Amino acid sequence: MTGEVRYLMNAWYVAALSTEVDGEVLFRRKILDISILLYRKHNGEPVAMRDRCAHRFLPLSMGKREGDIVVCHYHGLKYDYTGKCVHSPHGDGRIPKAAVVQSFPVVERDGFLWIWLGDTEKADPSKILDCSMLSKSPKDAVFYFAIRNNANYELMTDNIMDLTHIDHLHGPLINTNGKLSPLIPEVTEERDDINIRWDWKADPAMQLLAVHLEEPEGKADQFFSVKWHAPSNMHLQVGAVQGSDDYHKDGVVLYDHHIMTPETAKSTHYFFGSARNYKQYDAEYNEMHKEGLRTAFATEDKPVIDLQQEEIETTDLFSLNPVLLSSDAGNVRVRRKLKALIEEEVSQGDTNSTAMK
Amino acid sequence: MTGEVRYLMNAWYVAALSTEVDGEVLFRRKILDISILLYRKHNGEPVAMRDRCAHRFLPLSMGKREGDIVVCHYHGLKYDYTGKCVHSPHGDGRIPKAAVVQSFPVVERDGFLWIWLGDTEKADPSKILDCSMLSKSPKDAVFYFAIRNNANYELMTDNIMDLTHIDHLHGPLINTNGKLSPLIPEVTEERDDINIRWDWKADPAMQLLAVHLEEPEGKADQFFSVKWHAPSNMHLQVGAVQGSDDYHKDGVVLYDHHIMTPETAKSTHYFFGSARNYKQYDAEYNEMHKEGLRTAFATEDKPVIDLQQEEIETTDLFSLNPVLLSSDAGNVRVRRKLKALIEEEVSQGDTNSTAMK
Amino acid sequence: MTGEVRYLMNAWYVAALSTEVDGEVLFRRKILDISILLYRKHNGEPVAMRDRCAHRFLPLSMGKREGDIVVCHYHGLKYDYTGKCVHSPHGDGRIPKAAVVQSFPVVERDGFLWIWLGDTEKADPSKILDCSMLSKSPKDAVFYFAIRNNANYELMTDNIMDLTHIDHLHGPLINTNGKLSPLIPEVTEERDDINIRWDWKADPAMQLLAVHLEEPEGKADQFFSVKWHAPSNMHLQVGAVQGSDDYHKDGVVLYDHHIMTPETAKSTHYFFGSARNYKQYDAEYNEMHKEGLRTAFATEDKPVIDLQQEEIETTDLFSLNPVLLSSDAGNVRVRRKLKALIEEEVSQGDTNSTAMK
Repeated sequence: MTGEVRYLMNAWYVAALSTEVDGEVLFRRKILDISILLYRKHNGEPVAMRDRCAHRFLPLSMGKREGDIVVCHYHGLKYDYTGKCVHSPHGDGRIPKAAVVQSFPVVERDGFLWIWLGDTEKADPSKILDCSMLSKSPKDAVFYFAIRNNANYELMTDNIMDLTHIDHLHGPLINTNGKLSPLIPEVTEERDDINIRWDWKADPAMQLLAVHLEEPEGKADQFFSVKWHAPSNMHLQVGAVQGSDDYHKDGVVLYDHHIMTPETAKSTHYFFGSARNYKQYDAEYNEMHKEGLRTAFATEDKPVIDLQQEEIETTDLFSLNPVLLSSDAGNVRVRRKLKALIEEEVSQGDTNSTAMK
Repeated sequence: MTGEVRYLMNAWYVAALSTEVDGEVLFRRKILDISILLYRKHNGEPVAMRDRCAHRFLPLSMGKREGDIVVCHYHGLKYDYTGKCVHSPHGDGRIPKAAVVQSFPVVERDGFLWIWLGDTEKADPSKILDCSMLSKSPKDAVFYFAIRNNANYELMTDNIMDLTHIDHLHGPLINTNGKLSPLIPEVTEERDDINIRWDWKADPAMQLLAVHLEEPEGKADQFFSVKWHAPSNMHLQVGAVQGSDDYHKDGVVLYDHHIMTPETAKSTHYFFGSARNYKQYDAEYNEMHKEGLRTAFATEDKPVIDLQQEEIETTDLFSLNPVLLSSDAGNVRVRRKLKALIEEEVSQGDTNSTAMK
Repeated sequence: MTGEVRYLMNAWYVAALSTEVDGEVLFRRKILDISILLYRKHNGEPVAMRDRCAHRFLPLSMGKREGDIVVCHYHGLKYDYTGKCVHSPHGDGRIPKAAVVQSFPVVERDGFLWIWLGDTEKADPSKILDCSMLSKSPKDAVFYFAIRNNANYELMTDNIMDLTHIDHLHGPLINTNGKLSPLIPEVTEERDDINIRWDWKADPAMQLLAVHLEEPEGKADQFFSVKWHAPSNMHLQVGAVQGSDDYHKDGVVLYDHHIMTPETAKSTHYFFGSARNYKQYDAEYNEMHKEGLRTAFATEDKPVIDLQQEEIETTDLFSLNPVLLSSDAGNVRVRRKLKALIEEEVSQGDTNSTAMK
């Protein structure tokens, strides 16, 4: 399954929601074709290491914990949270030098556990996508979920970078009644990030937002913006406002985070975190909103993207010569940028990215 | 799964029973490794095109219809029934020249939808296997069914071309009590068709037919004939007669059509259509007869052929040096003929047959 | 699935438990990637042949018996128990010379059906692993079972050759409370067999055995020994004794036989046969003991080994540079020995081992 796909190694990926790695659990997840063990030290700090014992390669997640130590379930080797074997019950107890499991930098931020699988020296947390709206907002204005898709992560990025699909794929709650597609979105590049933005006047605004405006049936200004941050992490804003030009102060805005982490070449962990500047203290609304969006992704987006993957089979979309539309302005730039970043990494001969295979 | 198998491209294949593509349905079926969309225009005419949008390759069958137009479910491109994109909601609405989905000639005849995946200029409907008995017979003397097999289509052709298997595989209703196997069948070639025929005297005749003869327990003349028409479409007749040499006028004859359409190298859509010259106005008998044959194929032939495929793994039977018996006279000729036709097509550099891959 | 793996062909493998091939049954099992038909002649003698008709390769096990003759279910060819076609109902009944199915030497011994897939002339029954404790013991002191694993057979051999896993993987009934791992086992080679042995003093002995000693809570001498016999057949003894140095006469000893037969490169038939020198006439205990061990293998060993296979993917463990511990002394020797035997066989150009593919 690998082989045909090269991932960007020197990059932060979300390995899990903070809530997924809970208490004493030894959490196993495959990321970029590599099995990873995630757990929390007793002080709460998350750690990550390869989920295979150095001896016979049994996933350590099958084992048990002794404090912050992980005990392999097969032959009892013990590892500390840095992946170093600290105890062998075998023979005279001597620990072979090679008895080390590769560990990975992990940063917990904004409700996500970010992992770095590349060259450890380059792991700079300042390069993590800014998702601070999730931690700055009141708790009942924030929610998360995770879905696993049977599709390459770039197809899932495409889905977010070309938001015109909402008018065709989704119901009235989150579409624009055809307003979006005719627009030529503005695409800008900011260092390695790609931004795409649509602005339009709606009458009325998108249902999801309109009901929270002063005049739900009235005219409104609207916008969508998505910031893509390599390799496949996106911050999306959608807003509506009436009689003002400050969406954030006078309007209603959703601050969504769409984070795609490859599991394999053809499957993806999709993490979603959302905040908003309205109805920030209504737990019931928050839950309802979450279920609405989760259902939309799981029953409307996911089947389409999975079937798209099944139909094209390849992970190299451009090899099929897709027709390009104005709405592809963002995702084409993103695919090219990502390809360039990967090629740059490969040309620099980053050993980490290949050593793992 | 492809790769090892080349199909005959310039040939008519049954894509579906007429009844499968009904009303407003957007019908998806994989044929020769290609996803095909079949539907009927409002005037009832069937059309076929590749089931993948030119933009992002979502199967169009996921979309909806607007009259005879198909709307892609992902970004709203609209296609007419020739596969031409006729509307884009994106940007200024300009339609890229490449926004065309390959369409295929379809002919509806005798209860089948015949499709041509090869060079369109060569699509000559006069080359479709004659199944006119199905349309000429009273409706209660005709039935159809479709079964999907997990086996290469040539194994399924072999099964029909060597009918001696019926004495070993099937129950008393459709076997010959050992009469068939000792016969040396007559194999003849007629242009590119291969015919095989067995004649024998039975005492009594095959149960299925005997009960419809004047003297069910009496002696009868019997015959089997199969006409193979490339690539894998067969017309089979089986008859019994007493005191006459005209099966069709004085005897009882079944006119069966065994049509094999490759889905992939190792799976096949098997279409069956049957007519007869007796009990032509008995709907109840017709249903019973259909269920009897469908059950025989589904529970007696299918498991054997699927297991045969599983056991040999390859799609090149001859590479395993099978022992040949007199009863293989027909299927060996058929395999050689088909191989020659495919090689001829390849040597002529037919671009269509490879462009699709 | 083959390709990457070469098996030792000139060796005895267990094809089935004696009880699996019962009465009139035509028993199908894949061994070393080859489908085998096993059945018993009316005199009770087991026979084995390739489970594919020479004509169209249908598994003969789908057919029926006529005495010791097997009739193919597809076109009625009949084979005697040597694999020779003895009857064809086709044409003039002439039997093509090539109508022979490869047959294999089978020896029934000690409750197992041993098969030889290599060069028939080298099939020497004296080279079968000695499992005579199973036939010499009273019937209520003996039991067998078979489990199918999704793992390469060498991983399963490793599991038996490194018994230190029992302290980490299994419950108190069959572990040593940490006594085993610190020991340096004695590894010896005896012709092509590899023996490994652990001796220790226990206080008390392993639960499973302790309850059958005079003083269950008292001190005891204990030992484990495993004899490995190529390719993957093992005889394991575990014993405890008090106040004597003769385990077999004065102590309690289990005589277990762990027999691994590759199904494919990544799946294994695991046959287990056990005898003991205590409680030899207690049918109820025998059943309970059997269920206890079967449950331990099925729910404790099997998931670990299957997941280990899933994690490493390859069948070449050493290519992953596993850390080696003192407890690996036996299995490393075994892997090297087996590799040498296979290479020796390949270098001798044994045609049988490749002709089959």
